[in-house]
Amino acid sequence: MSIAGQSITVWLTGLPSAGKTTLAKLLSERLEEEGIDHHLLDGDEVRTHLCNDLGFSRKDRDENVRRVGFVANLLSLHGTLTICPVISPYREARDQVRELHDGRFVEVYVATPVEVCEERDVKGLYAKARSGEISQMTGIDDPYEPPLDPDVVVPTHELSREESVELIWDAIKSRLSPL
Amino acid sequence: MSIAGQSITVWLTGLPSAGKTTLAKLLSERLEEEGIDHHLLDGDEVRTHLCNDLGFSRKDRDENVRRVGFVANLLSLHGTLTICPVISPYREARDQVRELHDGRFVEVYVATPVEVCEERDVKGLYAKARSGEISQMTGIDDPYEPPLDPDVVVPTHELSREESVELIWDAIKSRLSPL
Repeated sequence: MSIAGQSITVWLTGLPSAGKTTLAKLLSERLEEEGIDHHLLDGDEVRTHLCNDLGFSRKDRDENVRRVGFVANLLSLHGTLTICPVISPYREARDQVRELHDGRFVEVYVATPVEVCEERDVKGLYAKARSGEISQMTGIDDPYEPPLDPDVVVPTHELSREESVELIWDAIKSRLSPL
Repeated sequence: MSIAGQSITVWLTGLPSAGKTTLAKLLSERLEEEGIDHHLLDGDEVRTHLCNDLGFSRKDRDENVRRVGFVANLLSLHGTLTICPVISPYREARDQVRELHDGRFVEVYVATPVEVCEERDVKGLYAKARSGEISQMTGIDDPYEPPLDPDVVVPTHELSREESVELIWDAIKSRLSPL
């Protein structure tokens, strides 16, 4: 395969309402300013086009992570920096995606404590989980395994959005130059 | 999204053993020679990584086509010419993929007659279908709807492999320049 120049995948993992999508969008704007070819693999886009058969079992969540990882790897292999905001609760599946990327992978742990996530509750899912309306909610009655050795940790409850994005951008910059 | 330059998707549709994968590989070599960034979305790769839940019902076949089309569109949007050898038996699903690509789509009908395909029988599937060992075999007991207005028609039974690839390359060349 002719490849003009390879890029990386920036994988944002964290609890629901941790701020993954918000940071992904701000990062996309930052990359736009820098003129860097990139793609935000949006969760809704992925659910509709790649994963409409998947539910919330561990098997299905891992399969979701694998499919997103597969697409991100292709895009970044061909030079498009790919941003993936995905809960991706299980360490093993994330590590498989990292392995697939053969070094072109930046794992960002959006490390917002569950109390703060629940207070934000962007999609109202925590409230629904507490009332018993839904189950298998990551952070409530479904596990989340934090990364053991992430490339970046973003404590969004202690930083401004701008500071959070700069933290990620700093980590990316150093990884883009040698490629 | 910053996009360096858009490219196209080359979609090869046709019966099993029509020669789609062979032509896709030769086309990939041709593009390699030309130094054009491209990706062959191989059928096995797709089955393993994107579609391991899908079978041979019309619904599943169409979903397979949609997922491959979604990924091809992303890659080609970001400048990677994407080659998709996919049986894709139903016209409607192929037309949806064409629409998604908003003009950046070249449909190649690998128009090998079923008798010739059956004689080649690369994977031994025609024999298995005739003996009743498998069912839902496209061209035998499952439909194939030929394109009504393909961009290229390749009668592989009347042309050499080299001639077939040149036919596709000629059609691609004219589509790459204005992008």
